This record gives sequence, structure tokens and C-alpha cells, in this order.
Amino acid sequence: MSAPALQPRDAGPITPEAIGAAVAAQRGMVEQLFATLAAGSQGNPGIMRDTYGAGENFGHEVMVREATAAGLAVSTDAAANTYATWRGANADAPAILMGSHLDSVPHGGNFDGAAGVIAGLATIAALRELGVQPQRDVTVMGVRAEESVWFQVSYIGSRSALGTLPDGALEAKRIDTGRSLADHMRDCGGDPEALRRGVRALDPQRIRAFLEVHIEQAPSLFEAGHPIAICTGIPGNFRYPNARIIGRHDHVGTPRRFRRDAAMAGMALAHALDEIWAAYEAEGTQIAVTFGRFHTDAEMHGMTTVPGDFHFSLDVRAYDEAVLAGIEAQMQQAISKIAAERNVTFELGQRASAAVGLVDADIRAALTQGAENLGISAMPLGSPASHDSAAFAAAGVPVAMLFVRNEHGSHNPKEAMEIDDFMAAATVLALWVAENAN
Amino acid sequence: MSAPALQPRDAGPITPEAIGAAVAAQRGMVEQLFATLAAGSQGNPGIMRDTYGAGENFGHEVMVREATAAGLAVSTDAAANTYATWRGANADAPAILMGSHLDSVPHGGNFDGAAGVIAGLATIAALRELGVQPQRDVTVMGVRAEESVWFQVSYIGSRSALGTLPDGALEAKRIDTGRSLADHMRDCGGDPEALRRGVRALDPQRIRAFLEVHIEQAPSLFEAGHPIAICTGIPGNFRYPNARIIGRHDHVGTPRRFRRDAAMAGMALAHALDEIWAAYEAEGTQIAVTFGRFHTDAEMHGMTTVPGDFHFSLDVRAYDEAVLAGIEAQMQQAISKIAAERNVTFELGQRASAAVGLVDADIRAALTQGAENLGISAMPLGSPASHDSAAFAAAGVPVAMLFVRNEHGSHNPKEAMEIDDFMAAATVLALWVAENAN
Repeated sequence: MSAPALQPRDAGPITPEAIGAAVAAQRGMVEQLFATLAAGSQGNPGIMRDTYGAGENFGHEVMVREATAAGLAVSTDAAANTYATWRGANADAPAILMGSHLDSVPHGGNFDGAAGVIAGLATIAALRELGVQPQRDVTVMGVRAEESVWFQVSYIGSRSALGTLPDGALEAKRIDTGRSLADHMRDCGGDPEALRRGVRALDPQRIRAFLEVHIEQAPSLFEAGHPIAICTGIPGNFRYPNARIIGRHDHVGTPRRFRRDAAMAGMALAHALDEIWAAYEAEGTQIAVTFGRFHTDAEMHGMTTVPGDFHFSLDVRAYDEAVLAGIEAQMQQAISKIAAERNVTFELGQRASAAVGLVDADIRAALTQGAENLGISAMPLGSPASHDSAAFAAAGVPVAMLFVRNEHGSHNPKEAMEIDDFMAAATVLALWVAENAN
Repeated sequence: MSAPALQPRDAGPITPEAIGAAVAAQRGMVEQLFATLAAGSQGNPGIMRDTYGAGENFGHEVMVREATAAGLAVSTDAAANTYATWRGANADAPAILMGSHLDSVPHGGNFDGAAGVIAGLATIAALRELGVQPQRDVTVMGVRAEESVWFQVSYIGSRSALGTLPDGALEAKRIDTGRSLADHMRDCGGDPEALRRGVRALDPQRIRAFLEVHIEQAPSLFEAGHPIAICTGIPGNFRYPNARIIGRHDHVGTPRRFRRDAAMAGMALAHALDEIWAAYEAEGTQIAVTFGRFHTDAEMHGMTTVPGDFHFSLDVRAYDEAVLAGIEAQMQQAISKIAAERNVTFELGQRASAAVGLVDADIRAALTQGAENLGISAMPLGSPASHDSAAFAAAGVPVAMLFVRNEHGSHNPKEAMEIDDFMAAATVLALWVAENAN
């Protein structure tokens, strides 16, 4: 029970150099896992690992196969998340969790999500080769359903495991199939009824840390010339997945004063939020505004008809809850003004939100120091995107993230990542786990 | 040859009162024709008289049936326009043409277009009952293909008849079928090869006037409380039926400086044109700007993806060619600025345009005087919409238009018209024809 974790087979010290060499030795396994994943989840273009569907299931199968072959303990939970555990000597010690999600957006990229799982598997393989014998469990979690595009709910897998899935989420319909989350979960071996009864797979008190490696979403690292970044925070958001503006279809010649042009009202709202964004940016506060869907009605629209109907989705994100609340208040003011001026009605529909995710200051400092000790060039970076780590942070788990350089952004078929950069992130991760597994 | 046109059977003078009574007597026929048209071209919702398709063909069948029963001479031309002629005594005298189009937008209204044909038929029926014997031919023209939404080309029927159809128009594809205008025309009994050889059905020199009754497009008359209006001009336009903005699909968290958001670029263009519109409006110049289609890509869009693609159609109209040219220049400046600022590419695609249509001052004055003599309350009104009359004006034919009050705008299922108001327009039309048929 009191055996030190750092107990290499040859009894020599585990240096940063040794960690670097042991992780580098996993490169073949890493490349093969990424290739296997891509081959089995082609989306033409891009990757299709649909949430609680065939693509995501394939990701979990690949993980189970690899973990089983490596002799790790494999289990699943009521939300069909997958856990691969390298058992520690002390079953009472809070576990280290590594991982990320195995789903993708439609026509997404191969590395978004999966990199976090593969980094965890590579870390365990490297530390085992070094003869490390952990005191605490070291577990890789393949998280379900992070991509909210499918069910319009974020962090489904991680929040199910932590017991923080919001009320009603199990009834959410997948946008393409129209079937409920509960039904899809059951199809994938989950047990939504257990979740309804309040069963949770993870106790935040029993988790030492959740560590997530993830490709960066934008070319911030590419621009700055660093292979990796250490996360400073994860944005919270508010969202309106299915908003609508109702005006009136009119003849193309209708004078301005009579119009109730829903598309021009959509323009005015987007313009107002774009101005708000520019103002925050100018004062150095990072936010992001995205109208992912922004469209006239395909059934009714035509060149000679003033659009009477307009649809949009909205995602607004920031690193500060007060900033988010301020933007939403400004948005509501803009909507009132636009509705009155343009004689239209806004139906914002269902609202969703995610809390701002704070990273653990001590782990962040240790990762920064570790990168320096390893000679790996790293920068601090506020995550532009939401991540499962935010759900763990909201539940009180210490979290940290490492980002890997990516030139072409994520959530698209051109997503790019150099394996060298990925190996750098895995090495920093492995060093921290080696230092904290006891 | 010199017999006066106004030769009533009872040899008494044809007073405005007599014209009023004779037109009023056609009310049953008018109501029945509108009802027959509506019953045979339901679009659920609204009316579907598709250009060179089953709906428009039905409109022409109804016209032919009515004209044949009334003993008028019925003919068609190479573009499958329909003519119903009340023969005048002098075959050399330039003819009076009345009429409008028999097609509709998808899910349009029953009166848009058809009112002009039925007003012509009612005028002839009323004047024949009064015993008028015209010197010149008096012809009702059922015009094909006015609604440019189908082939993205305006005034197809009238311009074919006048020999002014633009090059390449016969190759235009109908947006829903993908088949060419030439093929659709042939299906409807037309002869596109004759049009290609330069055959034209109408010689502008041999037309005394083209008179078009049409419902108003906006509630200007409803607002002002007049049953009819006398047109002061028809707007010209420039159009981009299939424009596109190409940016880049990116993750929802991508920072502002890296984005190439095509939807936000579309917003910025619509905002620029809306500002230009407001400025013209403020100085009393009437224009109109319509983005009929304004949408992200249905295949690729999603809540968590920055749109990399945006599509729109644009129609800009004004009563002055110099104003149109000025707006288009301002638009091009705005596009250059937006493309540079937002790192996107605009592909405006095919451009279409229609010339400003001037109405004949003498006929306009005579119609105004006629309405006064008949005790019918009328106002002057610049047409918000394009009309076949503009094609006749461009070819050098004297044209005039009468608008009928319509509360709910046109090009939509809620289009509304009171038969009383329609009868007022037909009466003013009939009085002018009675006074000018000799």
C-alpha cells in the first residue's frame, strides 16, 4: 500500500528523457489506432462517428479491442461510456482519469475527441513499459456523445457518468433519426432507466483529476508556432438550437413600410450580435458568436417573394458567466427593438447552456513545468471550444487540458494534426501521470 | 373605314353611366372565371399556375374556352401566348391590346395576372353588349411566363411576342424540373425554333396601346382607401438569382480573427443594402431590396459549425436607371469591403435585369379623367412590381396600367381582392377602350 509509484523495473530513476523515449515507442500503436478509426468511420467527406450510432460505436469497439489486448480492465456504464483501467495498488486512492469523446460532428475530422483517448492509452502503455506500478487506478475514459449537434444537448456522456445530465435530456430527439436519446442509448448497450433512477458511474470525490488531450479548434498554435498549449479555461455558452422569426411573405415589390421581412430581421439580429462581439474583442474580452444555421424556408423561398419565415441556430460562448449574462441581456434588447421596427415575431425556442469550465491551477502549473522539463514548447490558451472537461470541472473534479496544434480548425474534413505534435502532448501527459500515480 | 366606333345598337350616346352598367352586367362571368381558375390550379396553400406547366396551361384553356364561347377569334404564337380578338372594321388600324399573364409564383394568389385577362374579356363583352363596333382590333392577350421565379428570366411571354427575348433565355432551366425553357415551351404547343429564327408575333408599330389591369402588390391602396390606382411607372431591376459566398467551415469556437464566416458575410451585404435603401427612402426615392433566398447550406450547416457557404438571391428595383446603376456600384463597393474584411469570396453568378417601364402620359391622363367621369376614386401609384407592360414599353408600345386594391400583398396565398374594386378597374378600362377603339 505504501510502495512508491515510481518503481521502474531496472530500479533507475524515471527521468523526463526516459518518459520521452517510452512515449515515442508508442508511435506505431498511435498511428495504427488513428488509421483504424478513420478507415471505419468515413463520412464522405470527412469522418462520421455519429453520437449513439454506428460511427461512435465503432470508436468504442476500437478502444475496447486495444485495451483488452493490453490487459487493461474494461467496463462500461449506464450511458455506454467505456473505461479502460490500469489497476493501482490502492483501491481507495482517487483515480486519475484521462480521455475524451469518440463521437464526431457530421463530416468532421478524425482527431477531434479520439486524440484524448489514444493519448491516454499511449500514456499507460509507456508507463507500463517503464515499469511504473501505480498506487491509484489510472483510467482511460472513452466518453459518449460530446458533440451537441446530434441531440442539441452537450456533454451527454460525461454528465451521465457524473449524474449531472439535465432533466429531460433523455427525451431529446436526434436531429436526423427523430428517435430519443434514451432509445439510442439503449441500442448501444446503455441503461437509460438506471440514469433516471439516479445511478451515476463516477463520484467526483474519488477522482484525483480528469486530463484531456484535444486538438485545438483554431490555428492559434499554428499561428504562434507551438506544438502544444496548456488550457487556461473552457468557455461556457448559451444556445438557441432552433430559433425562428415569423414575418410575412410578400411580393418582391412591397414597399419598405409594409414589409415584415423575416430574413432582414435575421440579418439585423446577426448584425447586432456581431457588433457586440466586435466591442468585446476591442476591449480584450474573448467571446464567440455563431449562427450555424441561418436560413430562409426552403419550401417557401424564391427570388420574387419577401421571406416571411427565417430560421437560425445560435451559439454564444465566453469564459466568464457575467459576460455571458450581459451578452444575452443585450441580445434580448436587440430582439425587442428589431421585432418592433420590422414588425416580426421572434420565437427563440428551447434554450440550452453550459457553465464556464475552470481548469485546476496546480495541474496547469505542473503541466507547464513538465513541458519545460521535457523541452517541449508550449503556450497558454483559452479553449475556444466546449469540452467534456467542463462537465468534470462543473462537478468539482480538478481538470486540465492539453491542446495539439491543428492548422485547419476542427469540425470539418480538413482538420489536420501532425503525429509529432500529438506525441509531444502525450509525453507531457505521461510525465504528469508518472509523477501523480502514487 | 371612317365609321365611328361608338355606334351603339340603339344609336344613343355611350355615356359613362352606360359603360358602368354594361361592365356591371359582366359580374357573374367575372366571378365564375376567377372561381374556375382557382378550382383548377390549387397549390395547397395558394395557387400553383407554374410557368409552361400544367397550372399555366389550365389558365390558357379557361381563357380559350371563354373567348371561343363569346365568338372571339382565338390564336396562339410561337411562345404559346393566347390572343382573343374582337375584329375591328379596319384591319390596318393599330390594335388595342389588353391583358396580363396567366402564370403564378409557387403558392401564389388567384388574382395576380389573371385579373388583367379577365378585365379584358369583361371589357369586350360589355362593349359588344352596348353595340360598339370597333374600327381597330381589340385583343385580349393571355401572356405566358411573367413570373421570373421559374426560369429566372422575366417577361418571357411578352418579350418572345415582341422579339426582345434575351439571347440564351431559351436555354434557361426551370428551377424545379431542370428542363430548358425551349423544351417546356414546345410541350405547351410553342415553337422555340421559330423564336430562334427571329419570328415575332407582335409589331410594336401596329399596337395602339397595351393596357394591363393588375392587383396592387402592397396595401398602398388599402392604406389610402381607394379602390383603384393609375400607374405612374414600372420599376426596372437588377437581379442575381443564384449568388453564393464561399468562406470556410470551422469549429464553433474559432476566434473571430481566423473566421471566414459566409453567413456573417451575407449578413454584412444585406446590412449594407438595407442601409442604402434607408438612405434613398429618407430622401424620398423609392427603391426596394429583396433577398428572397438567404440561407446557409442545408447539407453542411449545424449549430456547432461556422458556415463556410452561404447562398442568396437578390432583386433590387427602382424607377430610374441612374438610381439602379448607383445602387449596383455601391453594392460592388460593399462586396469588395466585406470580402476583404471577412476573408470570403463572392460569386454573384448570372445577372439579370429589366429596364424601367415608362407609362404613356396621354393614356394615363385619359384614364385619370375617365375614373373622375365615372365617379371612381383613384390615386396615382408607382408600381412596386415588374409587369409585362414594362416589356411593351421597352419595345416602344404606349402602355398604361390600372391597379386594384389588395390588402394582403401578392405572391402569397393570402392575396385578396374585392370584386367591386376589380369591376371599378374594368369600367375605367372599358371607357378608355370605347373612346379609342375607332
